[in-house]
Amino acid sequence: MTRIGFIGLGTMGAPMAANLLRAGHAVCGFDRSEAARRAAAARGIPVVDELARAVRGAEVAITMLPDGPDVEAVAAGPDGLFALLAPGSLLIDCSSIAPEIARRLARLGAERGIAVVDAPVSGGPGGAEAGTLGIMVGAEAEAYARAEPLLTALGRPRHMGPPGAGQATKLCNQIVVAQHLVAVAEAITLARAQALDPLSVLEVLAGGAARSWLMETFGARMAAGEANPAFRMRLMLKDLRLALEAAFAVGAPLPATALCASLMLAQAAAGEDELGHHAVVRVYERLCGQHRGQNGTERSA
Amino acid sequence: MTRIGFIGLGTMGAPMAANLLRAGHAVCGFDRSEAARRAAAARGIPVVDELARAVRGAEVAITMLPDGPDVEAVAAGPDGLFALLAPGSLLIDCSSIAPEIARRLARLGAERGIAVVDAPVSGGPGGAEAGTLGIMVGAEAEAYARAEPLLTALGRPRHMGPPGAGQATKLCNQIVVAQHLVAVAEAITLARAQALDPLSVLEVLAGGAARSWLMETFGARMAAGEANPAFRMRLMLKDLRLALEAAFAVGAPLPATALCASLMLAQAAAGEDELGHHAVVRVYERLCGQHRGQNGTERSA
Amino acid sequence: MTRIGFIGLGTMGAPMAANLLRAGHAVCGFDRSEAARRAAAARGIPVVDELARAVRGAEVAITMLPDGPDVEAVAAGPDGLFALLAPGSLLIDCSSIAPEIARRLARLGAERGIAVVDAPVSGGPGGAEAGTLGIMVGAEAEAYARAEPLLTALGRPRHMGPPGAGQATKLCNQIVVAQHLVAVAEAITLARAQALDPLSVLEVLAGGAARSWLMETFGARMAAGEANPAFRMRLMLKDLRLALEAAFAVGAPLPATALCASLMLAQAAAGEDELGHHAVVRVYERLCGQHRGQNGTERSA
Amino acid sequence: MTRIGFIGLGTMGAPMAANLLRAGHAVCGFDRSEAARRAAAARGIPVVDELARAVRGAEVAITMLPDGPDVEAVAAGPDGLFALLAPGSLLIDCSSIAPEIARRLARLGAERGIAVVDAPVSGGPGGAEAGTLGIMVGAEAEAYARAEPLLTALGRPRHMGPPGAGQATKLCNQIVVAQHLVAVAEAITLARAQALDPLSVLEVLAGGAARSWLMETFGARMAAGEANPAFRMRLMLKDLRLALEAAFAVGAPLPATALCASLMLAQAAAGEDELGHHAVVRVYERLCGQHRGQNGTERSA
Repeated sequence: MTRIGFIGLGTMGAPMAANLLRAGHAVCGFDRSEAARRAAAARGIPVVDELARAVRGAEVAITMLPDGPDVEAVAAGPDGLFALLAPGSLLIDCSSIAPEIARRLARLGAERGIAVVDAPVSGGPGGAEAGTLGIMVGAEAEAYARAEPLLTALGRPRHMGPPGAGQATKLCNQIVVAQHLVAVAEAITLARAQALDPLSVLEVLAGGAARSWLMETFGARMAAGEANPAFRMRLMLKDLRLALEAAFAVGAPLPATALCASLMLAQAAAGEDELGHHAVVRVYERLCGQHRGQNGTERSA
Repeated sequence: MTRIGFIGLGTMGAPMAANLLRAGHAVCGFDRSEAARRAAAARGIPVVDELARAVRGAEVAITMLPDGPDVEAVAAGPDGLFALLAPGSLLIDCSSIAPEIARRLARLGAERGIAVVDAPVSGGPGGAEAGTLGIMVGAEAEAYARAEPLLTALGRPRHMGPPGAGQATKLCNQIVVAQHLVAVAEAITLARAQALDPLSVLEVLAGGAARSWLMETFGARMAAGEANPAFRMRLMLKDLRLALEAAFAVGAPLPATALCASLMLAQAAAGEDELGHHAVVRVYERLCGQHRGQNGTERSA
Repeated sequence: MTRIGFIGLGTMGAPMAANLLRAGHAVCGFDRSEAARRAAAARGIPVVDELARAVRGAEVAITMLPDGPDVEAVAAGPDGLFALLAPGSLLIDCSSIAPEIARRLARLGAERGIAVVDAPVSGGPGGAEAGTLGIMVGAEAEAYARAEPLLTALGRPRHMGPPGAGQATKLCNQIVVAQHLVAVAEAITLARAQALDPLSVLEVLAGGAARSWLMETFGARMAAGEANPAFRMRLMLKDLRLALEAAFAVGAPLPATALCASLMLAQAAAGEDELGHHAVVRVYERLCGQHRGQNGTERSA
Repeated sequence: MTRIGFIGLGTMGAPMAANLLRAGHAVCGFDRSEAARRAAAARGIPVVDELARAVRGAEVAITMLPDGPDVEAVAAGPDGLFALLAPGSLLIDCSSIAPEIARRLARLGAERGIAVVDAPVSGGPGGAEAGTLGIMVGAEAEAYARAEPLLTALGRPRHMGPPGAGQATKLCNQIVVAQHLVAVAEAITLARAQALDPLSVLEVLAGGAARSWLMETFGARMAAGEANPAFRMRLMLKDLRLALEAAFAVGAPLPATALCASLMLAQAAAGEDELGHHAVVRVYERLCGQHRGQNGTERSA
């Protein structure tokens, strides 16, 4: 049994906190948003309305927040976790943020005797509920050893290297995801241009060397013009931005990722970044002078 | 039992002819190359040394040749199949060629009363031996009905539409393949740039949303610098050229495919197009000023 | 005074033939289209209604035709120029065609004792009228020496190398043109996204290191949404196709050209390839979910 | 006569300060680096060794610093210009930084009664010495009116819009510059692949529609493999990073810029980002398996 302060009770954080509770840990949750706190309480998670109270006496703090600046503010800001946690405690950040920020937080934490672990996840709300998230962990060996038993309550943790390595691995994942979706979009575009039925083409492709999890999961939806968010384009763009910035900082050329990001940006430019990331096929439709209404109805130019 | 003349007894054609024989058909094989004829004979396929003799009395001719101009010469050239086959016979072309050429051959054949079916395959030499090829078929309904029983001896045929539709589907497949390989190459590039172990990263990715058949099959080989051909870059480039030309002709923008083709062309420019298509990761290594010997040994700039 | 048969009396060919006439040569013109013949006759060019009559007794034939297959048919087809011209005569092709076709025609001509020179031009109808075309010439030295005095009546000829070198140079020119137009389109896109006045931005840019002839000539028109053809997108796409095919054949990676071609193809896909090549800025507007009517009026998504 | 504190006396700042002095203003210079201060003093500029002393009694402060964080630290940091300058004074930042930072500084300055003007320049050290810089200014109307007379001592100021508009214009300029250099690199690549002499090709192109200032200035140097910095690739990459981040933030798709940045990043990855930005042609040489020594000697793969 570990005493855990859990910060960030959104669509991902709430079920993760619930799983830790179920695994026998003493969890105290906090979220800035009262609605989120109420929803978490409704599923049985003890919540408080102050960050300081959430981590009072905690051995471990876990954060699940939107972006790097949020984590920096909560961890390193005035009255933040580095000030609140006792030396010797552990901070596990499950947010998806820039590797560089993860490394900086690990250094700042170390100065205060707090081990900081980056542990971004994949698998979405479904994986969070089921406790089957993929968890990519960046941590010193000792900190990883302490974090691992907790993380197994959330999914399958894997130690990728020192602080930042978890975030960097997540970015590798996301650049492949973006490219696979664009690949499906181009296959649909070529299929249509050749007067083929895109759905039949994707079925055939999914039976051979061209298959991918994303094609199998989103291919038919893309061909049908369905654009409901499973993973929002806005979040995909955030991850691509982080990946390209991280690559830029170390001089790694990723031309195909950069192109996919440009195309996905066009989704944002058209005011559609709250659609799912698989809606990138609409960018190709617009490029070809075809337009769809929000509900997917095809309209002529 | 159908009398079949089989033209093109290479790495793909020979095992395909053998499977038709095994399925009870009367097969007579021909190849321009004496070595290929001898190798086919050695596996029990009846061979002759003239095109005309191979299709004498045949109800069906099957071609498995390198590229469109080869098929055009054999089918529509002087003393070609259109002159040799009897009206009412069937020509099944299993080569990967331009959809436009497939459509033209179907029109020319129709003028002579010969039904022409395009039936390019995927699955490589392994699938050809095992009789488990994916077969993408473009044909009129009646011609498809005649071709299907023969094609089931070779794998899983699927009717995609009128003549040309099989070739067009194959091109959709290949543009996805190229993009998946480039996606893996960029993941490896970013992993290295972030001081991660590429192999571990690909293992993690293959367990989640970023997984693809190509990543699972070639990822580790790419990370290790292994470049032995499973599918030669030269052939990948041929297919990308056909796809881009077909897209160009109908005005379909495929920017990511075009970029991948440019990167893979760099492999040819560096004199390495006989390596496997997964060796595209070397283009990224060269971009970053790293060089590898033919055997994969890393060398500094 | 040289006796010249001039084949192809379109927007470019007619004024070129007129300039040769003006320079004192004996010109006999031919065009398949009666309208073109009539228009040429109206400006004083002697015309005939058969290819054979146009080159009867001619020392030199000049062709100015739409594309490579047209030139091949006229030159190497049955009853074509290679059959009609006397050994020792000269064929100057001013069309823009594939370097590979130019080389093939030079070889075929040489077999018949006819020197073939490729001499594509730049400068448009204005340059053709004024006799100030840039002329990029591929030819053996002796053939160039014979062609040069004639070409000076049309503009500024420059010997770039053996047969095909003229066409290859033209393609180098066109890939730069395409990239410059896309660069201007991206500057306009970024300017708008940053709430700047695109016109003012282009004025500033044209005063510094970012200036180009295309920016100075088309920048303001692009910012204003004017899309009247100076050079049709359809022709730009033809040249980009030739450039990418020529590059593909020799394994030269041109990723930026390939991307520009993809974007310009989107113009064709949207049914706008009869607009000017500078209308590529509309592709960006569509990417961003903005649409314009044919007359340039902006409409919301 | 205006009392000016000039912060940042590098290759650009020193000649700019000298020109202000020459125009009759009272200039007091400061730079963190003693070497820079000494060099500025040697050309007659009064220098001090503390930021506070440089702006004591100044009506105007001008900053010319490497990047946004530097300007933020000097302006808004503890003991920075916002604390040191009197309300009613003017801060002109000539550095090239993110438009977003320029806007933030303008807001922070306004809170303290200090008008902040962004005024990035183009024209390089030569333009700085000659007082002929292009100056792109973002400012409120009143602040622009105050800044303009000072800026005319440095070159040609132009008011582009509210705070941030100067920086945004500079970024538009830089994305065009990058694309023009890549265009020249691709022309050279295609020329070589077609066995043409790149230098002759560029001469022809520079005489027609494909010409640009960058082609005329750097084309021959690129073809010859000369890579001495006129503008360092490292700085080009900084500007492209700012442009892509600014575009990303507002959802503007710039696929060609993103591709050019990826290619130029490869220069950094190969450890060559201290070469000139025109050395991007080396990326193409490496892509094609060709390598050059630092001195430009060509080496085989």
